Amino acid sequence: MLKEYSLKTDKEGLYDITSKVFEAVKESDIKQGIVVCYNVHTTAGITVNENCDDDVKGDILLGLSKAFPDRLEFKHGEGNSCAHLKASCVGASQTFIIANGKILLGTWQGIYFCEFDGPRQRRFYVKVIADKN
Amino acid sequence: MLKEYSLKTDKEGLYDITSKVFEAVKESDIKQGIVVCYNVHTTAGITVNENCDDDVKGDILLGLSKAFPDRLEFKHGEGNSCAHLKASCVGASQTFIIANGKILLGTWQGIYFCEFDGPRQRRFYVKVIADKN
Amino acid sequence: MLKEYSLKTDKEGLYDITSKVFEAVKESDIKQGIVVCYNVHTTAGITVNENCDDDVKGDILLGLSKAFPDRLEFKHGEGNSCAHLKASCVGASQTFIIANGKILLGTWQGIYFCEFDGPRQRRFYVKVIADKN
Repeated sequence: MLKEYSLKTDKEGLYDITSKVFEAVKESDIKQGIVVCYNVHTTAGITVNENCDDDVKGDILLGLSKAFPDRLEFKHGEGNSCAHLKASCVGASQTFIIANGKILLGTWQGIYFCEFDGPRQRRFYVKVIADKN
Repeated sequence: MLKEYSLKTDKEGLYDITSKVFEAVKESDIKQGIVVCYNVHTTAGITVNENCDDDVKGDILLGLSKAFPDRLEFKHGEGNSCAHLKASCVGASQTFIIANGKILLGTWQGIYFCEFDGPRQRRFYVKVIADKN
Repeated sequence: MLKEYSLKTDKEGLYDITSKVFEAVKESDIKQGIVVCYNVHTTAGITVNENCDDDVKGDILLGLSKAFPDRLEFKHGEGNSCAHLKASCVGASQTFIIANGKILLGTWQGIYFCEFDGPRQRRFYVKVIADKN
């Protein structure tokens, strides 16, 4: 089962897509397997992190901006190389395990679409693969 | 096949879980497929790196702490935002290929559970998916 | 379906392997599923990033070298700990979704083998898993 989702983003942000990924797994009716959540953009990513204190999201964005700041030496004409760097750091996709029809997330884990160069209209896919054993 | 493992960690560390993941694949009796190793915590991760010189583990932890140091500007009340950052950098999971009943690791590759905010009792899952073609 | 590829690298570089991964999917004749692209080295990785402006590749390498520089404190005898750090940051593998026989890449996304410690002879695997639902 494959589902496509879209979202509208602000300049930068971590967008909680946990409920969308759970919804896709539920619709698939697959009880045991894995699910791949894939972002199709090069200045955005998917990550897993804390779902409780919203301050963590801002701290992650700040920490990434400090680790991967804009640099005068960057040559890319669009001027968003630091967004490309953050995208490769957090990764374009995340893979999860499905057990008994639910994603095996930790208690404090949420799934986030990471916008590093918005505002933009963005898309991601959720693919569910059944375990046939 | 799904297996759960737990481990007790120190403050920070890379814990070699390669033998656990191999064990799960062996128990599954699946000869061709993939295996997903998934960590359920938001201040820990799973990575693949050198299995030979133990100094690499310390260097990785040091390099991550330099790239993602604690910052006065961080707002998260628990004070462990740098651990959350490292978790999103190395990733919550890793996916491997199974061929002829063995994980296709490189000669120098080991699989590591990364503790960024211990000591804690931690858990991770190993899910094996068979290739039916 | 499992395919092995090799490439010869320079000192540092992002090598476009998109066509190889597409070729493996085509050969597999699998129309719906996922594909795992796995690098077997500890000072190299696989990432997804811009396929259009070549300057992005250089900017990513520069940004990673700034975030993870060589350090006097590093103890690893081979002196390439920063390459190990970059490898754990971008990740050893990437997973993609296959729909209608094609990889669901974004318009601007390419798949790159990342060399952080060349020149070397390198290898990576492409494993295609069919969705049987």
